[in-house]
Amino acid sequence: MSVHFRKLALIGIGLIGSSIALAARRQGLVEVISIATRKQDTLDEARELGLGDIYTLDAAEAVRGADLVILCTPVGAYESVIKTIAPALEPGAIVSDVGSVKGHVIKALAPHIPEGVSLIPGHPLAGTEHSGPAAGFAELFTGRWCVLTPTEDVNPAQTEKLAAFWRAMGSQVEAMDAAHHDMVLAITSHIPHLVAYNIVGTVADLEAATQSEVIKFSASGFRDFTRIAASDPVMWRDVFLTNRDAVLEMLGRFTEDLSVLQRAVRTGDGPALEAMFTRTRAIRRSIISAGQETAAPDFGRPHEAPPASPLPIVREHGGGDDA
Amino acid sequence: MSVHFRKLALIGIGLIGSSIALAARRQGLVEVISIATRKQDTLDEARELGLGDIYTLDAAEAVRGADLVILCTPVGAYESVIKTIAPALEPGAIVSDVGSVKGHVIKALAPHIPEGVSLIPGHPLAGTEHSGPAAGFAELFTGRWCVLTPTEDVNPAQTEKLAAFWRAMGSQVEAMDAAHHDMVLAITSHIPHLVAYNIVGTVADLEAATQSEVIKFSASGFRDFTRIAASDPVMWRDVFLTNRDAVLEMLGRFTEDLSVLQRAVRTGDGPALEAMFTRTRAIRRSIISAGQETAAPDFGRPHEAPPASPLPIVREHGGGDDA
Repeated sequence: MSVHFRKLALIGIGLIGSSIALAARRQGLVEVISIATRKQDTLDEARELGLGDIYTLDAAEAVRGADLVILCTPVGAYESVIKTIAPALEPGAIVSDVGSVKGHVIKALAPHIPEGVSLIPGHPLAGTEHSGPAAGFAELFTGRWCVLTPTEDVNPAQTEKLAAFWRAMGSQVEAMDAAHHDMVLAITSHIPHLVAYNIVGTVADLEAATQSEVIKFSASGFRDFTRIAASDPVMWRDVFLTNRDAVLEMLGRFTEDLSVLQRAVRTGDGPALEAMFTRTRAIRRSIISAGQETAAPDFGRPHEAPPASPLPIVREHGGGDDA
Repeated sequence: MSVHFRKLALIGIGLIGSSIALAARRQGLVEVISIATRKQDTLDEARELGLGDIYTLDAAEAVRGADLVILCTPVGAYESVIKTIAPALEPGAIVSDVGSVKGHVIKALAPHIPEGVSLIPGHPLAGTEHSGPAAGFAELFTGRWCVLTPTEDVNPAQTEKLAAFWRAMGSQVEAMDAAHHDMVLAITSHIPHLVAYNIVGTVADLEAATQSEVIKFSASGFRDFTRIAASDPVMWRDVFLTNRDAVLEMLGRFTEDLSVLQRAVRTGDGPALEAMFTRTRAIRRSIISAGQETAAPDFGRPHEAPPASPLPIVREHGGGDDA
């Protein structure tokens, strides 16, 4: 199916919004791109970069006549945005977004979606360490997953149309229930970030002498956690405020498992520890088989397409060898 | 001070042992290298690689006449090794090792060290994903820390001699109390690994449908944890069995902090979450200032010298931009 939208409205034009603009233009997926931002500076920057055809501070004007509207603002701004644009949305239009939680987004947007408009939230699992309109590039989504969480009353043809748009930009697309998305992301992304923030926080509370040595020897593992914990605090605050239930559910399982591990350490239960450290390898192998392993760390790094062939399992040496 | 040992005995010749052999030879730090292993295969491999001058299955023979003995076997084998070699150790010799815990090592070795022999345990913070005699390379220690934990009765001149040996192989050397080493490593290395194993274990218990999606979307953070949790289970079992007290102390602080974070998520305390996610940045900056940041993840990866100039702070994008 050839993908074609008459007018794409991007509300917000940071890294993701600008990458969508560039990818959609390059692939010839849209005729007109209209861009709305809240700040004049950002709008001027987008115009200088030539990201669109229409530039406005009025989000309602941006969406007029658009058959695809994608919110690329922080999730916290959605309710105010949807109230502004709802009266200007055309029947047949698709409203989507790029936020990292989905149940909350549906709660914020659904009540304001007019009759005949399809709400299909989306989450492209892509990013780099840069932000702003100049950070975007057309290849950002190449080989990356995009999850769509259409609401129940949406016509499947509309979902397929949006999926085709993302596939044309290079993504692999998966549709699922918003609650399921939030649970999966809680364990793949939100809990790892929470744990990383937590361990760095524990170090921040150590006495100064120990702390300076922790920093010195941070390459032994801790450093990688600080890289994760260097992510944007405001964005992560919002993730935890808006995906609370799924995070607490997964955190409950995590702490329960940690208590079991802690007991095995306390009682010196070697066989239990070895068994627990061994069973995690199957998961690792699955990730490699799924082509999801790359040589580079993902946290806060530019993304590339997954490698054509899986990499070998890596192991860490820890100071003991067979004699 | 020019570094010179008459005879270096390496007990165990895996990645670390073979790298010491190559680096010491290249830098001209020793006259004779004797190598002892438990298995004939490993010994034959070391001989084919030309790692030493003397090859033997008898550790006592290997240490005869040696002024530097370094145990490079798993920590669990130390007690049996030291009992074997103790009668053959010469007065004036230094006995060291490369294990990742130090208090336990002193407990295992000290009672067997003869009068006039200096026990100076060591821990080179270096490794790659490979193991065995063929994995070694002379540059492994370049720019990496090596911690020495001399026992109280050791002559400082002996410690300095061993420190000079490590510096000549490219390491930065730091001497400290064994208990302090174990506490610092518990938080920089052991707890990060425990937490990584734990989160991968939590995923291993998820229902199959969710698990397959977790694997699919693992690049969002979880994947980096699986890389950590792919480390050698037996080695890590031994770390947790031999550094129990420090691990439990640090794990106690970690879980206490996690409870506070969990409460903030549950009560939707945005300011507290943001504050906690912000204060971790100072630690990150310190690591970068200390030159301990590299572009590559450390877990199970080949090491290189730290970069000459610090890298910029990285941030992760999560689907929201300023509009």
